[in-house]
Amino acid sequence: MAEDATARAHALAEAAVGGDRLALARLLTAIENRSPLGEAAMRELYPKAGRAHLVGITGPPGAGKSTLVAALIAEVRAAGRPVAVVAVDPSSPITGGALLGDRVRMQAYAGDGDVFIRSMASRGHAGGLASTTTAAAAVLDAAGFDLVLIETVGTGQSEVEVAAAADTTVVLEAPEMGDEVQAIKAGLLEVADLVVVNKGDKPGAQRTAAQLRAMLVPTTGRTATDRPQPKRPDVLVTTASTGEGVVALLAALDAHRLAGREGRVESARRTRAEAQVRAILGDRLAARLAVPQLAAESDAVFAAVADHRLDPYAAADQLLELAARPRGD
Amino acid sequence: MAEDATARAHALAEAAVGGDRLALARLLTAIENRSPLGEAAMRELYPKAGRAHLVGITGPPGAGKSTLVAALIAEVRAAGRPVAVVAVDPSSPITGGALLGDRVRMQAYAGDGDVFIRSMASRGHAGGLASTTTAAAAVLDAAGFDLVLIETVGTGQSEVEVAAAADTTVVLEAPEMGDEVQAIKAGLLEVADLVVVNKGDKPGAQRTAAQLRAMLVPTTGRTATDRPQPKRPDVLVTTASTGEGVVALLAALDAHRLAGREGRVESARRTRAEAQVRAILGDRLAARLAVPQLAAESDAVFAAVADHRLDPYAAADQLLELAARPRGD
Repeated sequence: MAEDATARAHALAEAAVGGDRLALARLLTAIENRSPLGEAAMRELYPKAGRAHLVGITGPPGAGKSTLVAALIAEVRAAGRPVAVVAVDPSSPITGGALLGDRVRMQAYAGDGDVFIRSMASRGHAGGLASTTTAAAAVLDAAGFDLVLIETVGTGQSEVEVAAAADTTVVLEAPEMGDEVQAIKAGLLEVADLVVVNKGDKPGAQRTAAQLRAMLVPTTGRTATDRPQPKRPDVLVTTASTGEGVVALLAALDAHRLAGREGRVESARRTRAEAQVRAILGDRLAARLAVPQLAAESDAVFAAVADHRLDPYAAADQLLELAARPRGD
Repeated sequence: MAEDATARAHALAEAAVGGDRLALARLLTAIENRSPLGEAAMRELYPKAGRAHLVGITGPPGAGKSTLVAALIAEVRAAGRPVAVVAVDPSSPITGGALLGDRVRMQAYAGDGDVFIRSMASRGHAGGLASTTTAAAAVLDAAGFDLVLIETVGTGQSEVEVAAAADTTVVLEAPEMGDEVQAIKAGLLEVADLVVVNKGDKPGAQRTAAQLRAMLVPTTGRTATDRPQPKRPDVLVTTASTGEGVVALLAALDAHRLAGREGRVESARRTRAEAQVRAILGDRLAARLAVPQLAAESDAVFAAVADHRLDPYAAADQLLELAARPRGD
């Protein structure tokens, strides 16, 4: 089975790297399903990746993320560069409808082999969203996409983490926010390398941008040595629906990529690698505890915790001992 | 240090169980910070928990979750029962403001020792939100709160998982949803034990409830044996701002608790226990790899993944071997 997966992954990986989009789509499905084929594909393709620029795009529902992604695709294609999009679809009552609308809009690129758009479900494996998205980006990278846009809605922890794991993170804002809202949104701004006020044709867009620039000045009187340097993101204004400001945004992304090679981008890559390996470690440990020789024992430990006969820390220690037990026991 | 934490946790736990709310608040902070004190407190208090009814309340922003929670508190207190609330605050531009408003409203209970309201940050440890919230609920349970409401905004994966890990999960809906939206929101409805259409005084509330009841009829022609039985949640209508329907909701919650003891609730407890233990397993493994003897080696493995010289699966296997290596090596 594992050997079979390796052989199939090899064939599909070769085809995907050679430009076969159906093979690429199949590999991404395998990765999303965390199947043996997905693991085999990652083992083969991950070492071929690492060249693409991964750009996270996040923000509140209604800020115009999908429209901006569509506008970015148009600019990138005008420059003759290939581009892939991973859209993390929260299956949410709030954004689901809008995303579907934009999916339809992106059908315009259905015949363009240098544009590849993939949506990923955000529900499912706990903590696995970031890891799955990172893996998908690596496969797209290996398949030759030099720019991978990762679009997520910035309302949930997992979704923001996905965007923050990119080389460059763009946080979108809509104009005319109330004062109350601004103070709270610091949580989202913290992950921003670039802040974009979209819907620049709306009244208040320039004022919002000015307010954000003022907010993003680092607090004075704080020693910079003992805590991470604030990112001090640039604030741009775009009107994604007309394309206004999108060329400047693309230039800012490219500049961040070049400037960041040795700093921010390196640290994002390290964070991403750690998160990905840790997710796999969790899966490996779970798989080891589920082998027939250990399943009954680990099951009893979980049942004791569910019944409050055992605390979860003691349970974790028992399971670690169980997992470390020599095989064939 | 660990012994000190155990002694302090013991003193704080005794005080918290005895009704000292400041001690309880300190323990919850320790749990949120995942400090040694938090672990020691869980080890002591978790076996004393398991009696409370954990009710998750989730739904899209604007459905009136916080207002409903306030109305539920009023009813529960009118019945002379104690109640605790864990509000998972997404630090979100969308809901942050509203939550703050309701925080102020809940100040009405500041002098009532049988109401305890705690907000938790949803950002931070990947995958740790559900585990931290579950631990907080267990501590509140051990401290004698027979009913614990866990309020989360249903837009992100983590937040929905938190609500879904409760014994009983209530999904709130606002009336007058567009048709487009309804189809998508299945993702949220899947976790519902009870669906509540709030803002029942708005036109369209009864129609929305009728539509939801129709949607929630299980698909015919599908064999029920090979997949989990759909939950078929009841649909209630409330007007949280006036309290209309809240008595009926509380009765439905109590009924679900009683009816579910051997079924749904047991399975929720098992799921919760597994998720909690797995989160701790991840922490334990990370801590073991970070000990001075192994730190350099595990660091090199992560760096190789970041540089795409090593794939993350091979890295995970190397780190598992490293962690299993006998101590004092």
